[in-house]
Amino acid sequence: MTETIIIGRVLTSETPQSTRLENVALLVDTDGTIQERIPQGTARYDVLSARRDAVWLPDETLLTPGLTDLHIHAPQWPQAGMALDRPLEDWLGTYTFPLEASYADPAFAEDVYDDLVRTLLENGTTTALYFATIHEEASLVLARTCLRYGQRGFVGLVAMDHPDLCPPDYRQASAREALDATRRFIGAVRALPGNEHGLVQPVITPRFIPACSDALLEGLGELAAELNVRVQTHASESDWEHQHVLNRTGQTDTHALDHFGLLRDHTVLAHAGFLDQTDRALVRNRNAALAHCPISNAFFAGAALPVRDVLDEHVHCGLGTDISGGYSPSIFENARQAVLTSRLLESGTNPHLPASERGLPKSRIDFQEAFWLATRGGAEALGVSAGQLMPGQMFDAVEILGTSGALRLHPKDDAATCAQKIVCHASSQTIGRVWVNGRQIKEKASHPC
Amino acid sequence: MTETIIIGRVLTSETPQSTRLENVALLVDTDGTIQERIPQGTARYDVLSARRDAVWLPDETLLTPGLTDLHIHAPQWPQAGMALDRPLEDWLGTYTFPLEASYADPAFAEDVYDDLVRTLLENGTTTALYFATIHEEASLVLARTCLRYGQRGFVGLVAMDHPDLCPPDYRQASAREALDATRRFIGAVRALPGNEHGLVQPVITPRFIPACSDALLEGLGELAAELNVRVQTHASESDWEHQHVLNRTGQTDTHALDHFGLLRDHTVLAHAGFLDQTDRALVRNRNAALAHCPISNAFFAGAALPVRDVLDEHVHCGLGTDISGGYSPSIFENARQAVLTSRLLESGTNPHLPASERGLPKSRIDFQEAFWLATRGGAEALGVSAGQLMPGQMFDAVEILGTSGALRLHPKDDAATCAQKIVCHASSQTIGRVWVNGRQIKEKASHPC
Repeated sequence: MTETIIIGRVLTSETPQSTRLENVALLVDTDGTIQERIPQGTARYDVLSARRDAVWLPDETLLTPGLTDLHIHAPQWPQAGMALDRPLEDWLGTYTFPLEASYADPAFAEDVYDDLVRTLLENGTTTALYFATIHEEASLVLARTCLRYGQRGFVGLVAMDHPDLCPPDYRQASAREALDATRRFIGAVRALPGNEHGLVQPVITPRFIPACSDALLEGLGELAAELNVRVQTHASESDWEHQHVLNRTGQTDTHALDHFGLLRDHTVLAHAGFLDQTDRALVRNRNAALAHCPISNAFFAGAALPVRDVLDEHVHCGLGTDISGGYSPSIFENARQAVLTSRLLESGTNPHLPASERGLPKSRIDFQEAFWLATRGGAEALGVSAGQLMPGQMFDAVEILGTSGALRLHPKDDAATCAQKIVCHASSQTIGRVWVNGRQIKEKASHPC
Repeated sequence: MTETIIIGRVLTSETPQSTRLENVALLVDTDGTIQERIPQGTARYDVLSARRDAVWLPDETLLTPGLTDLHIHAPQWPQAGMALDRPLEDWLGTYTFPLEASYADPAFAEDVYDDLVRTLLENGTTTALYFATIHEEASLVLARTCLRYGQRGFVGLVAMDHPDLCPPDYRQASAREALDATRRFIGAVRALPGNEHGLVQPVITPRFIPACSDALLEGLGELAAELNVRVQTHASESDWEHQHVLNRTGQTDTHALDHFGLLRDHTVLAHAGFLDQTDRALVRNRNAALAHCPISNAFFAGAALPVRDVLDEHVHCGLGTDISGGYSPSIFENARQAVLTSRLLESGTNPHLPASERGLPKSRIDFQEAFWLATRGGAEALGVSAGQLMPGQMFDAVEILGTSGALRLHPKDDAATCAQKIVCHASSQTIGRVWVNGRQIKEKASHPC
């Protein structure tokens, strides 16, 4: 790969509340690292922009950091948008587990994962934290698919062995079996041809506490420390799940996971709506993170994550599509739902109650904060050196087309306005080129007319 | 226009809970009326499908009724997605009224309305019920724009004269002036060249009770009866507005509007979240309708419309984008938000409350019901003979591309599955051809690559 120079407007989050819009020249190294970010009006900018190999963004587009999907079940892509009227337990048992079981056939995985990764890239998702299935070969198909398309993928072989909550034909037969499979999978992903720079990483993935025996959870915690691997799981998603773990362990999910050594640097807890302040403090102290999945939560959580508190308490947090608990593969659609849900938490929803008893005051987040969650929040959650388009970071970026679909970006729009319009209106139609690690992995128009 | 034959799969609502998917041949008359709808497997189908002028839909697409936007402020299109963090009163006074005032210049209207109507058609909206502004010439620009593109438009010159709640530079100076302007506008729209068949209709449009004097409301009621014109307004949108009308009139909006003769056949009340059962019974008895605007409501209503009750009580109801109280021009995006909001009403949002005290049980609607609201519900609300693609109805239809964006329609999918997938995933990217009154008014790909 050669050095790249990109000239144009760049929109990034400085804090959740502050967004920056700047005309810059970006010099991207041959290894995909941003070497320089030079503002317009400087001598160095003039030098870089005068180079014949400079890539100029059109006036009506701008560059944002790539989007991170912090929680997505790749095998559930074929049922995105289906059966969302069922309760969580029924949805899992009748629909989801049988679908996931079919990935025993790696050939089935090939087509699904190819379509999914391409769809995510069309939506600007440069980094995804995936749940795969319990099948090693099919899960490696997902890792290879990320590598083939150049997406930054964190891929988890799912570990689930509890006979009470897992179907007999879709679980590992014992903790030992699940631990051995996880260890093999970690080695296999790290050894994949083409993965020398670690674009795709394995992730230790206990499905959730109810689906795992104590022995499995303990063993996975040891494995995470031994092999220095990230961890992901579901935590305190619904009343049922939250109470189930309280009953079984006498602790909240967060404290129980910590007890098992699973709440570590960059562990990602999906949903987490029922975490209390003590739980969140523990998440922050462990440098772990939350994946907020607002579309999915409307169907399965039974409440809203108080994301205002999460931001104010400086707990790492990003967004997850939670395909197929959520139907949309778009992080931007989830970002706007995060804003809407926070408003419905603040106001409450029941018109029969007086306004003063209806909601939870001061719960709203705004569109700039949603933009932060979609970009920098997600990258920081995973500890990926990206999310700000600053020197030293990897060049993971998305070109936003400001005159497509319903999006209308004007040259006079300030940073906050651009963030607001992009969160409200961005769709796959408004995503132009996409880069990961300096490599352009999506063209402007991905569908031939 | 010549007779048209269209062959393919058609998806329509029979009831809110029941969706029908059928392979048919549709024979559309020269005046845009569906003359025949013949199922596959009949002799007549074979005759029609053998004709050389038959238009065959590709296998991966299907036809739905055109979408109806029951509430949209056309002049607010330039601020879609802006300033949604302000309270309603501030949002109106600081942002919205000044923007609307700028339509005193009809040239400003030309560009905005052209862009808006094209955007709505790209989103499959074949019928729109518009609030324009108080300016007669600019509002006629909107009517002419609908005619030019062939969209079924219901266009309201806004009436607002109350000195306490309207800014001095953006209101009619008196009830008399507003009534005269409304009367002139009704005549002018009906007399527009090219509008001989009434594709575009005028609508009597008191902004909302707080912005109108009693004399204006009474006069508009009389005008509606005299000239047989539809009525639209906002009703019981927020705690503030609902209480304001109670204080001023001693009645709810619904009863007050009825008192003034404004609750009539096909009157559309936007928002209506704070209507009680008595109000809704009156709406039903008057054959009036509600415009549910779930995205806007998250910002400005302070509660959710109990749309489950609305459907169960057989009150006419469709969906509104409420540009720019809502940011999205897509009725399908509003349809999925209607589902999500109904779930957040049912479950409640505050995780600190016990589940039993959190929400309003049995409030959910499902995706088939959202599909109904987007198509047949909206058409019936306005009394437009469309929405089912049945013989005798006008051919207002949308081609759904089943392999675009995130949408994946399979030949084996049943009607409920198709409705669910379409509501979850449809965007302007998945809208192919669009017809109104038998005339094709949008090509498959509206943007050149």
